[in-house]
Amino acid sequence: MVKAKMWVLKKHFEGFPKESNFELREEIVPELKDGDVLVEAIYFSVDPYMRALSRMWMNEGDVQYGTQLAKVLKSKDPEFPEGCYVLAECGWRTHTVTKSKGPNGPILTQIVPEWPKDIPMSLALGSLGMPGLTALYGLEEVCKVQPGETVLVSAAAGAVGAMVGQICKIKGCKVVGSAGTDEKVAYLKELGFDQAFNYKTVPSLDEALRNASPEGYDCYFENVAGPFFTAALNNMKSGGRIAVCGGIATYNDTTPQMCPYPHHVIITRQLKIEGFMVAQWKHKDEESVKRMLQWMKEGKLKTKEVVTAGFENMTTAFMRMLKGDGIGKAIIKV
Amino acid sequence: MVKAKMWVLKKHFEGFPKESNFELREEIVPELKDGDVLVEAIYFSVDPYMRALSRMWMNEGDVQYGTQLAKVLKSKDPEFPEGCYVLAECGWRTHTVTKSKGPNGPILTQIVPEWPKDIPMSLALGSLGMPGLTALYGLEEVCKVQPGETVLVSAAAGAVGAMVGQICKIKGCKVVGSAGTDEKVAYLKELGFDQAFNYKTVPSLDEALRNASPEGYDCYFENVAGPFFTAALNNMKSGGRIAVCGGIATYNDTTPQMCPYPHHVIITRQLKIEGFMVAQWKHKDEESVKRMLQWMKEGKLKTKEVVTAGFENMTTAFMRMLKGDGIGKAIIKV
Repeated sequence: MVKAKMWVLKKHFEGFPKESNFELREEIVPELKDGDVLVEAIYFSVDPYMRALSRMWMNEGDVQYGTQLAKVLKSKDPEFPEGCYVLAECGWRTHTVTKSKGPNGPILTQIVPEWPKDIPMSLALGSLGMPGLTALYGLEEVCKVQPGETVLVSAAAGAVGAMVGQICKIKGCKVVGSAGTDEKVAYLKELGFDQAFNYKTVPSLDEALRNASPEGYDCYFENVAGPFFTAALNNMKSGGRIAVCGGIATYNDTTPQMCPYPHHVIITRQLKIEGFMVAQWKHKDEESVKRMLQWMKEGKLKTKEVVTAGFENMTTAFMRMLKGDGIGKAIIKV
Repeated sequence: MVKAKMWVLKKHFEGFPKESNFELREEIVPELKDGDVLVEAIYFSVDPYMRALSRMWMNEGDVQYGTQLAKVLKSKDPEFPEGCYVLAECGWRTHTVTKSKGPNGPILTQIVPEWPKDIPMSLALGSLGMPGLTALYGLEEVCKVQPGETVLVSAAAGAVGAMVGQICKIKGCKVVGSAGTDEKVAYLKELGFDQAFNYKTVPSLDEALRNASPEGYDCYFENVAGPFFTAALNNMKSGGRIAVCGGIATYNDTTPQMCPYPHHVIITRQLKIEGFMVAQWKHKDEESVKRMLQWMKEGKLKTKEVVTAGFENMTTAFMRMLKGDGIGKAIIKV
């Protein structure tokens, strides 16, 4: 008899998430039927999209969605034998009985067999997982960055942003990052960003962007929305490309923040603005993770984690991540 | 001795253009030097971009920019012999001595020799000129429309919009248009639009868009900005493409109109938004005009003009066009 703990969304978020939006519950997991697998979570990820898409993807009473790194405890599916490690789309649950595929695609994905012993498997939720792939696809598939180009990235010390900057350097680009504390800015410089600034303390966003790249930007990896987006638009070069990955500065709005209609600059500079989600290139994930593993082995990708211990602290870790506390990918170790 | 009349931008526009922004002047045109051509305007075009880009392209005291259809009166350039017809980037001037090329590209372009006798040459400023090419390139190069797709176009009874709708039908698309009077809506239906509505009288833009295409839109040809843009975004299909051609509802703003940051819908539906200007595909113009001429001969493209007589009435015609008075391309006959 296996008991599962799980975090349920009790009440939809209004403004910034609160403990009272969630409830910790327990249940006995069912016996396995043919094709079922029982997985036990080892690491959880908390990410901004859990705030952004909550109303779109969830009803009150649902288990909070999210990815976990898990171990197969019992299996009636020969493709996922006992003892193997998987990424599991099982939400915030310590133990889950599941099929490997659901109506919306794979639920379980085995960790690539080439995973090196000296690289922590938690990175499969960070630099070598969804956030890393998001950075890679935003640059390669959306921006189509070329060597020598100048790339701007906001929320640059975040799990995605830090990867964007480093991949830009691998690709021979100049990269400028913005972040919200001086410690984060120092971290960006450690990671090899050519320029970095604290968007909260510069006298003018527009001036900071111009100083960091007087000739403008070929590409902008957009994570924030808000006034930074408008300032970035105004600093794009003609023919610039903007990969819209997120808009974290607006996720907790109760009344929407407004911007001037951006038509003039979009037209006169012939800008391309494209929204994307990492799952668009799922068919490339395996090959992409192998490439990024290789970069990491070569020392070209560095990574940092903020690890919170204990499943009962998931909601706290989630809120800290949304506040931008800590530097590095937010991970929960069960 | 040839005397030229010309309209000068005396004072930059603030809000909606007024007669007092302009001044009519006269000058004696100089004698021709080697390589010079003297052109005499026959037709002028007035277009929304003359309001939109005014501050970007002009200083007070400059002759208002714009294209004219002109006849070569005298020539010291063998490529532009006396008597030939040209599109001339000479601004609002009745007579101009010019070279055929300037620092920013061609100033004179000869009307294609295949121009049929029964098609008015004024259309080289409209359906078979810049507005027609804008429609064509926005659909082919930016939206990359495919047969069977549903396309939305705003300001659909305008010089560009009416062409967008008709080219969509040629390409086997379903097309929905919006316009600002019932007469314009009736005109759109005459042109073959599948659906058309008066955006000023529908109870809700969102509802009107949903009624016209409950399954949403693959492409949106954007001419207006303002609340229509936001409503259109929310009715795009996943993977939708938006060609941003103009934003006429904002051109006369003295304080900018605001919209909610559009990130959520751009990301979750993976929208592509691209600004463009017709000159990006100048190398294709000759071939494109021939294709459109052919469509016109086959009766697949209809066109309407609102002709104002008299060079002294250019500013009035310009303001009427901006107000959306009249149905058809605004043309001034000298």
